[in-house]
Amino acid sequence: MSILVVGSVAFDALKTPFGQVDRAIGGSATYFSVAASFFTPVELVAVVGDDFTAKDAAVFEGRPINTDGLQRVSGAKTFFWSGEYGYDLNVAKTRDTQLNVFAEFKPRLTPKQQQADVLFLANIDPELQMEVLKQTKRPRIVALDTMNYWITSKRDALERIFREVDLIVINEAEVRQFMNESNLVKAARAILALGPKTLVIKRGEYGVLMITGDSAFAVPAYPLENVFDPTGAGDTFAGGFLGFLASRREVTDKEFRRAIIFGSVLASFTVEKFSLDRLREISISDIQERYQAFRTLTHFEDFEI
Amino acid sequence: MSILVVGSVAFDALKTPFGQVDRAIGGSATYFSVAASFFTPVELVAVVGDDFTAKDAAVFEGRPINTDGLQRVSGAKTFFWSGEYGYDLNVAKTRDTQLNVFAEFKPRLTPKQQQADVLFLANIDPELQMEVLKQTKRPRIVALDTMNYWITSKRDALERIFREVDLIVINEAEVRQFMNESNLVKAARAILALGPKTLVIKRGEYGVLMITGDSAFAVPAYPLENVFDPTGAGDTFAGGFLGFLASRREVTDKEFRRAIIFGSVLASFTVEKFSLDRLREISISDIQERYQAFRTLTHFEDFEI
Repeated sequence: MSILVVGSVAFDALKTPFGQVDRAIGGSATYFSVAASFFTPVELVAVVGDDFTAKDAAVFEGRPINTDGLQRVSGAKTFFWSGEYGYDLNVAKTRDTQLNVFAEFKPRLTPKQQQADVLFLANIDPELQMEVLKQTKRPRIVALDTMNYWITSKRDALERIFREVDLIVINEAEVRQFMNESNLVKAARAILALGPKTLVIKRGEYGVLMITGDSAFAVPAYPLENVFDPTGAGDTFAGGFLGFLASRREVTDKEFRRAIIFGSVLASFTVEKFSLDRLREISISDIQERYQAFRTLTHFEDFEI
Repeated sequence: MSILVVGSVAFDALKTPFGQVDRAIGGSATYFSVAASFFTPVELVAVVGDDFTAKDAAVFEGRPINTDGLQRVSGAKTFFWSGEYGYDLNVAKTRDTQLNVFAEFKPRLTPKQQQADVLFLANIDPELQMEVLKQTKRPRIVALDTMNYWITSKRDALERIFREVDLIVINEAEVRQFMNESNLVKAARAILALGPKTLVIKRGEYGVLMITGDSAFAVPAYPLENVFDPTGAGDTFAGGFLGFLASRREVTDKEFRRAIIFGSVLASFTVEKFSLDRLREISISDIQERYQAFRTLTHFEDFEI
């Protein structure tokens, strides 16, 4: 079933201890779409400037990604982010952000997009997230991501949208920040009390913790010898996770757990090269193989003392 | 089969956001012994002053812990550590350390202790660890723990003992520090290249990563709503881990993985109350129940795309 993502398509300038690029394709909706498209058709809603060329748009080609919702604004530039990582790749230092076309982004969903089965509201202004949600015919699953910036600057709007969604994909530090509670499980339960049924907590190199009203599921990240560029790992995770879920008829705890693993698998590829370079070259069999590697990484047998 | 631990028995003054104690029983060998004793007989080698009363020694009673190797030094005081934790319970701030009897600690193993099947060299001076190891008849498994202090002050001695042991239990930050390498997997492989067959990396609230020459196993920590006092969690983990291993006839990858879980189970209890308070009240069935909870926390099913 189809998945609709509303977020950014961007150019990134990236510097890591292992190299740098001045103009790489990035953006939350880009990573999300490519990751999700391994499992399900994707409707992409985003905006670019006329500096976004046909060669750039090739990132979406040959995949079940409908880019009719990718607006082009003439005479304007695409959203630009410049970030730098030290040897501790967990923390990005933003050097520059130029909203450009993104500053005036007012998504209008087509009738087909309004019927989407799964909706992902990537990390954008929570008021915009609400406007998008209101245009839909209540998808089966509504999920969102956010960031510390919105927790600080638009907490009330963020809480309003939290109350409307089924699922929140969010960084660990943001869970604590939003509830002003150091204990992660307590903070997670407090967010669930607002309405969402599921909280998926991203912990960077430590993996993912999913909390629902009556269960918890945790998986470590895949231990990699070569982590090159962590940009987009979170959005890739969300794409793999929700893309897999959208492809399943029933959304049971069993499928949620598999979806968390597929999200983690996709994210583990993204960080191996700059931008979407690695994500663009992998095949379904690479994904299947790393899913098995996650099984080997985490499996242990029962025991009676 | 029996396990021998050489380390500290101490008094701790602890302050956390949730309370404080001025004189609680602590010490690496104490936490280790009690945890290991759920699975196997323990030979304890440590030293205390005459301020360590019969009531204090009750922590070892009713368990298969032989305290013949617990030296008592008259007219001297027991090792004392005072630490404080903020809301980020991952980092202890040391307020005071008084080595007392520990400054002159020169363990002499009895013939029975020399025959131990498994040896754990808790976090003490690496030169002392080597002296203890030399007194043994080469146990089936030799394991050690260490800390940043020894990496900085006695790196050469530490590397010498690293080359002699089978297994190192160590904090994540110390792996990176020892090899001056930010990538954890690369740093771990470099330590394995020195000789140890297995590296067990403690990641605090993120769990444990075990690396061997040809495999990796990772488990998250148990997500707890009430983490009260993290003191001793690492030593408790080591005790549960090695205690279980010592109890198994064959030390296969399957048993190593179970051992990592039992270590994690025991550590998850330790942090629920001050000092060893929680560890002292649990039963085998509590341990068994949380082992199952770890299964539920981490289990996911196979899938063919």
